[in-house]
Amino acid sequence: MSLLPTCRDDCLALDAADPLRALREQFDLPPDVIYLDGNSLGVLPRATLPRLQRVIAEEWGRGLIGSWNHAGWMELPRQVGDKIARLIGARPGEVVAADSTSINLYKVLAAAIELARQRDPRRTLIVSERENFPTDLYIAQSLAAQNGMTLRLVDGEVAPHLNEQVAVLLLTHVNYRSGAMHDMAALTAQAHAAGALTVWDLAHSAGAVPVDLHAADADFAIGCGYKYLNGGPGAPAFVWAHPRHADRVQQPLSGWIGHAAPFAFSPDYQPAAGSARFLCGTPPVLALHALDCGVDTVLAAEPLGGVAALRAKSLALADLFLARLRERLDRFSIRILTPQDHARRGSQVSFAVPGDGFALMRELIDRGVVGDFRAGVDGQPDLLRFGFTPLYVRFVDVWDAVEAIHAAMLGGAHKQTVARLGVT
Amino acid sequence: MSLLPTCRDDCLALDAADPLRALREQFDLPPDVIYLDGNSLGVLPRATLPRLQRVIAEEWGRGLIGSWNHAGWMELPRQVGDKIARLIGARPGEVVAADSTSINLYKVLAAAIELARQRDPRRTLIVSERENFPTDLYIAQSLAAQNGMTLRLVDGEVAPHLNEQVAVLLLTHVNYRSGAMHDMAALTAQAHAAGALTVWDLAHSAGAVPVDLHAADADFAIGCGYKYLNGGPGAPAFVWAHPRHADRVQQPLSGWIGHAAPFAFSPDYQPAAGSARFLCGTPPVLALHALDCGVDTVLAAEPLGGVAALRAKSLALADLFLARLRERLDRFSIRILTPQDHARRGSQVSFAVPGDGFALMRELIDRGVVGDFRAGVDGQPDLLRFGFTPLYVRFVDVWDAVEAIHAAMLGGAHKQTVARLGVT
Repeated sequence: MSLLPTCRDDCLALDAADPLRALREQFDLPPDVIYLDGNSLGVLPRATLPRLQRVIAEEWGRGLIGSWNHAGWMELPRQVGDKIARLIGARPGEVVAADSTSINLYKVLAAAIELARQRDPRRTLIVSERENFPTDLYIAQSLAAQNGMTLRLVDGEVAPHLNEQVAVLLLTHVNYRSGAMHDMAALTAQAHAAGALTVWDLAHSAGAVPVDLHAADADFAIGCGYKYLNGGPGAPAFVWAHPRHADRVQQPLSGWIGHAAPFAFSPDYQPAAGSARFLCGTPPVLALHALDCGVDTVLAAEPLGGVAALRAKSLALADLFLARLRERLDRFSIRILTPQDHARRGSQVSFAVPGDGFALMRELIDRGVVGDFRAGVDGQPDLLRFGFTPLYVRFVDVWDAVEAIHAAMLGGAHKQTVARLGVT
Repeated sequence: MSLLPTCRDDCLALDAADPLRALREQFDLPPDVIYLDGNSLGVLPRATLPRLQRVIAEEWGRGLIGSWNHAGWMELPRQVGDKIARLIGARPGEVVAADSTSINLYKVLAAAIELARQRDPRRTLIVSERENFPTDLYIAQSLAAQNGMTLRLVDGEVAPHLNEQVAVLLLTHVNYRSGAMHDMAALTAQAHAAGALTVWDLAHSAGAVPVDLHAADADFAIGCGYKYLNGGPGAPAFVWAHPRHADRVQQPLSGWIGHAAPFAFSPDYQPAAGSARFLCGTPPVLALHALDCGVDTVLAAEPLGGVAALRAKSLALADLFLARLRERLDRFSIRILTPQDHARRGSQVSFAVPGDGFALMRELIDRGVVGDFRAGVDGQPDLLRFGFTPLYVRFVDVWDAVEAIHAAMLGGAHKQTVARLGVT
C-alpha cells in the first residue's frame, strides 16, 4: 500500500476495497465519532454485553458456586491466555491473563532479577528508558530498592548500556508517548550477549503490531488487556515467561491460584508448573469474560491474514495521517515524534503542538475526533496522540480527522494561540 | 432471639416477623435452591445486571476514554472503599477497593514488616495460624523469605506466641474452615503489648459480623469482595491501613494509580497520601461496579440496624442450625467444628462427616441445598460448611436444610457409608 490516497474519495475507495472492512462490524461504535484512542482504551465489542449478561444472569445468578467448575471459571486465565498467545508468538500454556500490567511486571521482573543474580550476583543494574511508561519504572524502582540494585534510566540508545553489570533489560516494545518501536529481536540478542535477561512490556503491541516472543528469544513479557485487545476499562493484563524459565523461577506474589494444587489447601506453597505460577488470587470472572470477547475481535483477523494484515493496514493508515499532517499542518509548527520508518513505528502517531494542547484536544473532541492528550512537563510542549486500530479505523476517518485537526487549530479556544503564532 | 423455633411453622412465623425480611428482595435468587454458601460466593444482587449493562453500553460503549473522568471511573476504588469502610469500623478515605485479597495482603504485610523492623530490626517472626487460609500463608512465606524472617504457624492459642521476637501477627478474623472467630481487640492489644503489629484478614467478616477496626486499634486489614459483600466471582478485594501508618508506610506494588500524581507521568514514584498508596494498576471498572452493587446490598441494612442486626439474625439462624443438627444428626457421628459461643463464632457452621463428604454434598445439592465441601487431608474426615447470610437466608431455609441433610445422609450415594456405620 505504497500509493497514498490524495483525496477523500480515494479514501472511500480504499475502504470499500479493504479486505479487513468487515472486522469493523464486530464493534458497537458511537455514531459520529472518529475514535483514534484505541491505544488508550479499546472500543466495545458487540459480543461483550451479551456475554456479560449471560455470565452474570446465568453462570453467577443461577449456577452460583458450582460455576467455578461447571462454567469453567477456573480455566479462564489459561483459556484467555492461550488466545493472547496466538497474537504474540507464544505457545499454548505459556500465557495467563490475570491482575494488572503493573502487578504482572512485578512478578516477572522479580523472577528475572532472581534468575539473573543466581547466575551472576555481581550484576546490580536494571536498565530501562526514562521515557518508559512510568508504572514500569515505579515497579522497577521498588524491586531495585528491595534487591540493593540500581535502576539505570537511559536517554537515547539503549544498546550501549548493555554490559556485564546489567541483570535485566526492561523495555516497553512500543513507547506510549512517541509510538516508537524497538527491535525486540536485536535488543534481546544484545542483552543476551551481555549476559542480561529481558522483560518486554507489550502494552502497546499486543493486537497492534507483530510480536514473536519465541523468534525474538525473549525471556519474559507482560501486556495490557484494555488497549488494542479491547478488553474493557481496567481489563486484566497478561504475563508470559519463556518455557526455559517458567518452571524454574519463583515469583513473590505466591497466591493460592498459582499453587500446584490450590484445592489441597496445603499450608506450604508449591508453584504450579509453567506460567500458571504467575497466577495469584481468585480469577476475576466478569473481567476475564470481557477480555475474552475483546481478544476474539483481534483473532477474527486470522482468516484475513492475522496480525500481519492488521499491521499493513495500520501502517497505511498512519502513513496517510502523517502525509496529511505534513500537507495540512506544517505551518502550525507541530513536531512529529513518531518515527517515519515502519520498522521503528508502532500503531500510533504523536506530535507536539504549540500552545494549549488540552484546549485543542477539547476542540477536536467537539468536532467528533477523539485522540489523547498528554500535558507537556518541564517546559516541554503538549502532546497529542492518535492511535490507528485497523480493526475499526477507516481511511476516510484518517482523512476527516486531519481536516478536523486543521479546523480545530484555526478555531475555538486554540485560535488565540494560533493567532499569537502568526499563522492563519 | 434466645427461644429457638421447634417446628417448621415456627420458622415461617419468625420469617414473617423478621424486620430484615425485605432485604432478600434485593437478590436474584435461583428458584428451589437453599443457598448456604454465601461465605464462598455471594448471590447475585438484582442491581448488578442493569448496572453493568449501563456501564458497558453507555459509559464504555458511548463515553469511551472520556468516561475515566466523566463517569468517575478513576474514583471507583475510593468510592467503593468508603462504602466498605462503613461495614468495618473504618473512616472515609481509609479503605480502597483493588486487586485480590492475596495481593492486598502482600502490600500490607510488606508494609507492616518494614514498619516493625524499622522500630526493632531484631524481630524476625511473622506469627499466624496453621489453619489460616492457605493463600495468606503463601504470601507470608514469600515475604518471610524475602526479609530473612520466619513464619511461625501456631496450632491452638495464638497469644502465648506473642513475644519480643514477633514483628507481625497475621490472622484471619473468622476461620474459613471452622467458622471460629478471634477476639480482634484482645489479640491486637496482646500483640501491641508484645511490640508487634497486626494484619487482619476480614475475608469471612466484612458484611457478616461486626468489625470495628478503630475500636480494636488494628494496624492493617484486607478483605474479600465476593463472599458476604456479594461482589461477584473474583470481585476486587479491599485494603485498609490505620491512619497512624497509612502516610508513613511504603508498599512494594508501587504502580502508577498509587502515585501522588498519576497523570504527571513523572519517572519517580511518590506515593499518594493515605490508603490511596495501596492502589497499583488501572482500576478494574466493570468489576468495581459489580462490587459496588454488592456492597450496597449490605448497606441497605443500615436503616434496619446495620451489621448488628444482621449479626443477630445470623447467630439466630446458626443457633437453629446447630440445634437441629444435634436433634436430627447426632447418631451420624458428625463432629461440629464451629464454636457454640457467639463471641467465638463467625457466620458459618462447619462439621466433619463420616465417609464420603463429596458424595454427601452432591446428594444435598440434588436436594436443592447448596453448601460447601472441603476434602479431609491426611486422614482427617471430610468437612461440610454452611454459611448463614442473613440478607437472604430464612429460618425456614435452615429448617429445610437440616431435613435435607438428614435425608441425604440416609439416601443415595451416602447410604453405603451410613449403612457401614450401622445407623439408620
